Amino acid sequence: MAVNPIAVFDSGLGGLSVVRELRRLLPTEDLVYFGDTARVPYGIKSRRTVAKFALEDARFLLQFDPKLMVAACNTASALAMDELDEKLSVPVVGVVKPGARAAVQLAEGAPVAVIGTEATVSSGAYTAAIRSLAAQVEVIAQACPLFVPLVEEGRGSDDPIVKLAVETYLSPLREAGVHVIVLGCTHYPLLREAIAAYLGREVHIVESGRETAQAVCEVLQRAENLCEQDRTGSLQCYVSDNPTRFRRIGSRFLDQEIEHVELVEPEQYIASAVSDRKKE
Amino acid sequence: MAVNPIAVFDSGLGGLSVVRELRRLLPTEDLVYFGDTARVPYGIKSRRTVAKFALEDARFLLQFDPKLMVAACNTASALAMDELDEKLSVPVVGVVKPGARAAVQLAEGAPVAVIGTEATVSSGAYTAAIRSLAAQVEVIAQACPLFVPLVEEGRGSDDPIVKLAVETYLSPLREAGVHVIVLGCTHYPLLREAIAAYLGREVHIVESGRETAQAVCEVLQRAENLCEQDRTGSLQCYVSDNPTRFRRIGSRFLDQEIEHVELVEPEQYIASAVSDRKKE
Repeated sequence: MAVNPIAVFDSGLGGLSVVRELRRLLPTEDLVYFGDTARVPYGIKSRRTVAKFALEDARFLLQFDPKLMVAACNTASALAMDELDEKLSVPVVGVVKPGARAAVQLAEGAPVAVIGTEATVSSGAYTAAIRSLAAQVEVIAQACPLFVPLVEEGRGSDDPIVKLAVETYLSPLREAGVHVIVLGCTHYPLLREAIAAYLGREVHIVESGRETAQAVCEVLQRAENLCEQDRTGSLQCYVSDNPTRFRRIGSRFLDQEIEHVELVEPEQYIASAVSDRKKE
Repeated sequence: MAVNPIAVFDSGLGGLSVVRELRRLLPTEDLVYFGDTARVPYGIKSRRTVAKFALEDARFLLQFDPKLMVAACNTASALAMDELDEKLSVPVVGVVKPGARAAVQLAEGAPVAVIGTEATVSSGAYTAAIRSLAAQVEVIAQACPLFVPLVEEGRGSDDPIVKLAVETYLSPLREAGVHVIVLGCTHYPLLREAIAAYLGREVHIVESGRETAQAVCEVLQRAENLCEQDRTGSLQCYVSDNPTRFRRIGSRFLDQEIEHVELVEPEQYIASAVSDRKKE
């Protein structure tokens, strides 16, 4: 019997850190991934454009008849969840709510820090999600625009520029005495060590991707829609540009080699949006 | 009598540093600018995608009946000049050749450094352009992927992260004893001071944008197509996303406020490519 996959989209390759967590937690599930590497990044773009791109990404993946859609991109989750929920016929799980939920559980009333892209932070989505669960919790949000290019360049937690950038962005958060920090961008787990070393080991680090995998598991369990346990899940990746770069840098996010990557023509995902729009 | 403008396109807002030089040198000319802020940056994308985007950008601007087209984006100039030359019916000036020419004139046989985006450097376009003028000159090319986000974040030459990044990227160039460095990206002139301080004041800095304005002037002079001197040129800007961010950050590149910015719908510039293609 054919298995309906879990579909995952992202602005680029960062969402592979969410895929890594999904594979760890749900190794029997088939996964299909789309990274919009032709138009990456989303984090400096407007709500309108991010929503348009996110819908196109998601609709490209609908052709695989997924049982669930994961918006692995924090920016897309922060700016376009309403549109995705409204326009798609499958359940959608974003990364913001799961991350916010974990942060509130760990905060015990102390201030919570959220770091992310320019667009994620200025959207206020994490702050709103945290406040909806715990109205009194203080949320301090900080954009860290250098972290994505630092990670993509291959710089890790030991790199002097990384250390200086961490110190520069996070010193107000350390001074505020945060108990919890949410890594509100799929790239940031790769700088986890530098962040932990600077903030102190007692500060809880929430990886939204990890929490999202947990949320996906819960949704599928409730719907009794998990795969059988006697199979091995597959991973198929599609990108809108540059599969070579995706494979090279993405393997660090996935923590293993990426085997199947296919280049998608612009017409394919833009056209899929058009044809789907007609059905509405 | 209506005046044909000079058209300038770029992946985003960096090309405004070229516009600044054009306005300084040719204050009577009308300029029309398109920044593809929905798909920025180009510097991490494939040749194929950059060529497609560059053609779409240029074709959008053809509706203004320009007398000349400037590919202000170094990545587009490095990866797509052949396609632009071949497919467009107006003269096209890119930023690579003018930058290379100036570098060779200043090098006096010593090694030349070129810095730029990942895609510009790995294309080898500057190296090829320099070697075609002076086959023996040693060219050392270095990608500096953090410079663009550093500039866009508003960090200047005094910023500690900028200084550390400059030192990290440029130390091999300083050790090689370069006499000339080409700033092969429209964002880099905003870090000129930090680069000059690190390499030493005796090293010549070539700004490709400035050299390109000079080249545009020469082309129009030869064609006897410069505007009359008793008028003031205008500037009209179009972007594919986020005019507010374009205006806010772009004014630092232009060195003055940006007055007219219009948002272009994706269909407009993608459609313009389609209709133009039909004519061929």
